[in-house]
Amino acid sequence: MSDYRPVPADKFTFGLWTVGWRGVNTFGEPIRPELDSVEAVRRLADLGAYGITFHDDDLVPPGSSASEREAILKRFRSALEETGLAVPMVTTNLFSHPVFRDGGFTSNSRDVRRYAIRKVIRNIELAVSLGAKTYVCWGGQDGAESEAGKNDAAALDRLREAFDILTSYVRDKGYDLRFAIEPKPNEPRGDVLLPTVGHALAFINELEHPELVGVNPEVGHEQMAGLNFVHGVAQALWSDKLYHIDLNGQRGVKYDQDLRFGGGDIKESFFLVDLLEREGYDGTLQFDFKPPRTEDMDGVWESAAACMRNYLIFKERAAAFRADPEVVQALEASRVPELSQPTLGAEESLSDLLSEEIDLDRVGERGYHFERLDQLALEHLLGVRR
Amino acid sequence: MSDYRPVPADKFTFGLWTVGWRGVNTFGEPIRPELDSVEAVRRLADLGAYGITFHDDDLVPPGSSASEREAILKRFRSALEETGLAVPMVTTNLFSHPVFRDGGFTSNSRDVRRYAIRKVIRNIELAVSLGAKTYVCWGGQDGAESEAGKNDAAALDRLREAFDILTSYVRDKGYDLRFAIEPKPNEPRGDVLLPTVGHALAFINELEHPELVGVNPEVGHEQMAGLNFVHGVAQALWSDKLYHIDLNGQRGVKYDQDLRFGGGDIKESFFLVDLLEREGYDGTLQFDFKPPRTEDMDGVWESAAACMRNYLIFKERAAAFRADPEVVQALEASRVPELSQPTLGAEESLSDLLSEEIDLDRVGERGYHFERLDQLALEHLLGVRR
Amino acid sequence: MSDYRPVPADKFTFGLWTVGWRGVNTFGEPIRPELDSVEAVRRLADLGAYGITFHDDDLVPPGSSASEREAILKRFRSALEETGLAVPMVTTNLFSHPVFRDGGFTSNSRDVRRYAIRKVIRNIELAVSLGAKTYVCWGGQDGAESEAGKNDAAALDRLREAFDILTSYVRDKGYDLRFAIEPKPNEPRGDVLLPTVGHALAFINELEHPELVGVNPEVGHEQMAGLNFVHGVAQALWSDKLYHIDLNGQRGVKYDQDLRFGGGDIKESFFLVDLLEREGYDGTLQFDFKPPRTEDMDGVWESAAACMRNYLIFKERAAAFRADPEVVQALEASRVPELSQPTLGAEESLSDLLSEEIDLDRVGERGYHFERLDQLALEHLLGVRR
Amino acid sequence: MSDYRPVPADKFTFGLWTVGWRGVNTFGEPIRPELDSVEAVRRLADLGAYGITFHDDDLVPPGSSASEREAILKRFRSALEETGLAVPMVTTNLFSHPVFRDGGFTSNSRDVRRYAIRKVIRNIELAVSLGAKTYVCWGGQDGAESEAGKNDAAALDRLREAFDILTSYVRDKGYDLRFAIEPKPNEPRGDVLLPTVGHALAFINELEHPELVGVNPEVGHEQMAGLNFVHGVAQALWSDKLYHIDLNGQRGVKYDQDLRFGGGDIKESFFLVDLLEREGYDGTLQFDFKPPRTEDMDGVWESAAACMRNYLIFKERAAAFRADPEVVQALEASRVPELSQPTLGAEESLSDLLSEEIDLDRVGERGYHFERLDQLALEHLLGVRR
Repeated sequence: MSDYRPVPADKFTFGLWTVGWRGVNTFGEPIRPELDSVEAVRRLADLGAYGITFHDDDLVPPGSSASEREAILKRFRSALEETGLAVPMVTTNLFSHPVFRDGGFTSNSRDVRRYAIRKVIRNIELAVSLGAKTYVCWGGQDGAESEAGKNDAAALDRLREAFDILTSYVRDKGYDLRFAIEPKPNEPRGDVLLPTVGHALAFINELEHPELVGVNPEVGHEQMAGLNFVHGVAQALWSDKLYHIDLNGQRGVKYDQDLRFGGGDIKESFFLVDLLEREGYDGTLQFDFKPPRTEDMDGVWESAAACMRNYLIFKERAAAFRADPEVVQALEASRVPELSQPTLGAEESLSDLLSEEIDLDRVGERGYHFERLDQLALEHLLGVRR
Repeated sequence: MSDYRPVPADKFTFGLWTVGWRGVNTFGEPIRPELDSVEAVRRLADLGAYGITFHDDDLVPPGSSASEREAILKRFRSALEETGLAVPMVTTNLFSHPVFRDGGFTSNSRDVRRYAIRKVIRNIELAVSLGAKTYVCWGGQDGAESEAGKNDAAALDRLREAFDILTSYVRDKGYDLRFAIEPKPNEPRGDVLLPTVGHALAFINELEHPELVGVNPEVGHEQMAGLNFVHGVAQALWSDKLYHIDLNGQRGVKYDQDLRFGGGDIKESFFLVDLLEREGYDGTLQFDFKPPRTEDMDGVWESAAACMRNYLIFKERAAAFRADPEVVQALEASRVPELSQPTLGAEESLSDLLSEEIDLDRVGERGYHFERLDQLALEHLLGVRR
Repeated sequence: MSDYRPVPADKFTFGLWTVGWRGVNTFGEPIRPELDSVEAVRRLADLGAYGITFHDDDLVPPGSSASEREAILKRFRSALEETGLAVPMVTTNLFSHPVFRDGGFTSNSRDVRRYAIRKVIRNIELAVSLGAKTYVCWGGQDGAESEAGKNDAAALDRLREAFDILTSYVRDKGYDLRFAIEPKPNEPRGDVLLPTVGHALAFINELEHPELVGVNPEVGHEQMAGLNFVHGVAQALWSDKLYHIDLNGQRGVKYDQDLRFGGGDIKESFFLVDLLEREGYDGTLQFDFKPPRTEDMDGVWESAAACMRNYLIFKERAAAFRADPEVVQALEASRVPELSQPTLGAEESLSDLLSEEIDLDRVGERGYHFERLDQLALEHLLGVRR
Repeated sequence: MSDYRPVPADKFTFGLWTVGWRGVNTFGEPIRPELDSVEAVRRLADLGAYGITFHDDDLVPPGSSASEREAILKRFRSALEETGLAVPMVTTNLFSHPVFRDGGFTSNSRDVRRYAIRKVIRNIELAVSLGAKTYVCWGGQDGAESEAGKNDAAALDRLREAFDILTSYVRDKGYDLRFAIEPKPNEPRGDVLLPTVGHALAFINELEHPELVGVNPEVGHEQMAGLNFVHGVAQALWSDKLYHIDLNGQRGVKYDQDLRFGGGDIKESFFLVDLLEREGYDGTLQFDFKPPRTEDMDGVWESAAACMRNYLIFKERAAAFRADPEVVQALEASRVPELSQPTLGAEESLSDLLSEEIDLDRVGERGYHFERLDQLALEHLLGVRR
């Protein structure tokens, strides 16, 4: 049995804001001390992570002077070098400050929209200098509580304008950087623009440079809408748009829980890892979780380690599931491979299909044996079959 | 005050399966008699509807002989001519029969997929002969209970193949017919392929003839995922893909209720009508509801009439809302028109934007007055302001 | 037409924490200044409110010295006297401070549980001195993210112990004060103890002095579980346990929105007011909402005023609905009054009932005309019928 | 390692309507043949079940003559004797027939309410004659789509009246039979009376003979409201009211899925078994699931066997979790045992507690290590730790 010990080659990353979350929410005050970013780098490296990511304001507190900023970055770069930790992704905080109370790229206030673009572009420079290849955009304040207050067509126009500006900027500069939009259905706004992976994929198609923009699905965000995360990621992969992924846990349709990966829906976690591994997804695997407020700093690092460990457990189990000859036979019995056959043969014409007959009674009696297949998956997941 | 009496120019349509629903569900037997399609045509015409729509099997019972079919169609056409009722949309039943237990276009069984395409194409001929311009495709059985049993990439390939075949067929025949995909998150399957408007819009972009395929959002289907229907329809309109719409009611995240329009979320119903009317949507307005099992046939016709009446009430209220000078001023105070201004002026360069400064403290204090605006909307909706 | 202007006799109250909410949540910093409690008293009185309520820490900041506390209370009492505003309810903050990160009455830490009881009892003295008759207990941190960390039986024992201590204290002191438990399904904890009105009612039955403990249902809390608030309140009334009520708005199963009353589910708001007025509920009507972060202080007062105005609009509409002769006749047609007749007559024996026959076919065809009744309600709600 | 093979001593039971479900729902026709009840008895006995349960109409088709009924019962009894299968629970179908379209015990129609009581009492005689000790009552049609059509107070009065009649009947007859109310939030009605375990427990307290009435929680029913099933069952156990339990699977807030046990939320399934076993629940363990429509009869029996097998897997894993010394130590570190200590010591007075001080800063820093504990549970569940 594997010891499920992560190594950098696993490409696990953590947001600085995850292990550094202080526990403030609507009903509670901060419960953990500030985490020094260099400490975060060292601890994550020790745990076997590949990289660290951050929002601009996570690393450099807003209001820092140029020299303070320089000092912070210098220490941070040193820690990266010392540990070998990478910065494969960077993002922008367009939500915490009061100016973003009606959104960033789609705030009704033009001056805020301009500031949002400026804030992103300034941080892109830092991202590129650190070697990041992906720039995540989460527009959680881009939404509305009342349909009266937001003109959706205008909001989508402005969002498109923002991405067109950003992608043009990156192209003009010759940067090797792609954007990944992170959808979310609600919270902190009553309804958020681009609420699901599907809406984000559809939006990307309307951009000037769609090839530079993909999605960053987050487990809990889709599950907050009761959507199956695995199917959503599969569609993103099918569209060649899975540019980044945020792994965490959620237990149903409720507030954004950001549990550690494995701490939410176990079945979808298993099938997600199965999908990513089978499809050969080779991007980084980001854990975007919030250690619960009940934890002290020991609990923070335990839960961070558990995220990676759980991925490796699911990976081992999924591999065993796919390698089991009984599973191969069960997939056949469920006609899963048959779905990969074109419905109309290469050598056929539509009229062949149209002139065919089906024995409705006989075909209607056909069973698909999905219960057996699902049970085999469950037993591999639970380690009952080895 | 208007008497909210519908006329054909309102372009209201009903599915034959709506007023004809007999009330069978998982827990209950049929509670209403079969409804003759000619009776349905006459009653709907009397109520002021513009059109009637149907699934192939609604009109012609499966297993009918050619001559039976001919007789049914003859009576139906006569009733249409007599009443002037139109058939602007037709659809296919790819869900009731046992052969569709694992889906239609994406069944793991190739023979079923072929039969599904055949069933659609045969019915397209009828649709075109009746003058329909829209062909709705709802793939409610195209989904899965277990991720193990369905290869999503293959399913999406097969779905694309089906639409490519259908659009090519329609083009080859020179038919003036467009397809509209109806998304749904779940039920009857645990998870359904293309669960939301967003996923369907994204899928359409991958087709051979995307210009022939749009979406048919249904109020309750998006609301079953807790998504705001108004925002979803707005994105479909923004993408020029609102080819059809199904109006009904749903009260939250639960089973598919198919309540009459107005019987569900009142606020979203109001803002939906406001959106459709402001955007100048000129398609038909279809009511896809199921008169509750507590109703007898009188209740069926009362609820059908109420669907149309409610649309007209919301339309009147939305118009009054938009015409109210205090609302115009409140929209201004909420900076709603400002969102229509490009973030970067036509005459500006990005460096102008980048060199700008913002007074974060001052702008952070800015209030958006959405509560006042929303309250004005509520008071118009409730008829408190006139 | 009424002008929907609230007066103290309407018995509307507001929590100091509602109009005083500064807008901090998981994703956002404070966006409004601190609100002075005396200012709150004066503004609420001006708006026509009857009373103000508070958590201990809302009024007296934690860490205040005895003399600071005295000074705060003196100013507050003066403002109450000056304005005539009442303090009919008081509550305790057992959630914000880090010590409550695992709950108050049911924290795994015994010292925290003891502190929680102490904090409540100290504040009860203040409550009684201000004339409050109701003491609300919301145990939002009393819950768990993992079933492993909380022994439910022990948690319920401790919760019972806490209420037994509190009710004994109040009895011993001879105070005229009753407790009201406020249920909530989740947030800030993954799952909260006593998640619904039903669970709280059931719990109360296990107490030493159940007559001193009732429930404080909150609109949004039940709706966060997709439950119908009207039915929940009706059961609380049926059990004579509606000791307090928190009115606000929620749009479906998601994070706790705390919208203004009327800003959420309009239909349930209407039927709620209809129920409270018909049942002659004579307690205070508390608005427990959070003015959205998009609002400045003007928006705070506008939304507070709108809460009361909306209640009065719904009250007028519900009265008109009940007074409409067509509604009376429709209720009869729906056999609503027939449900008030005992199933077994006073003069009957069970054997009479057992020997009876029913004509299943005929009774099965009976329609209940609920659609007509619901449409009449909708039209009264929308002010279409007058 | 165990082979997870069920034996009668495990006390697993199945409803005849589960393995016999023909697959009819709102969108689909029957996909499986009728299952002979004797065949069901034999197959379930072969699989290792302890008992079989049924609704009156499952066993004896409505409209059967007295002699047909007699013949059916004779065959059924013979099969029971032959196999040793028990009938520990019986229930009544008060939902399928059109007469129940507005409910059974709380239908607005008095004749229907009388028929419902009669139907139950007649079936109680059969239940008792077969040795059943529990009588389940599910009132799924007892609800409403519109608040206007149902007077909740009257509905609760009638429901109480029905249970008072039934319990008096059972007492008068001297039967050893208890009732178990099965709550459900919605479906088939828009909202169902007694929507959760909590509401049912609260209702029972209002009955004439509460000692004869408990609850029958069903996994999926609570989860349809997003409620944590484990916590709900724990409260029922705490109230000594867990008279029966229905095990199945549900994947989130959506239509009633009735998946096999283990096929839904794995984590809650594990902790549920952990709870039942730790608390020494000794009733029967009923699987109330619906084999998906994709299955033929082989799939029906496979999924039935898997329900039992999964229970035994979870049972083994839960036992290992509780026996692990590291878990014992982790529970201690999380202060779980401390919650079992009374908050006020037996020898203490309240004034001791009131005069105590707490070091808020120090106690606020305390971590609860729930993440480590939850991870240990997960690893036992997944069979990583042995």
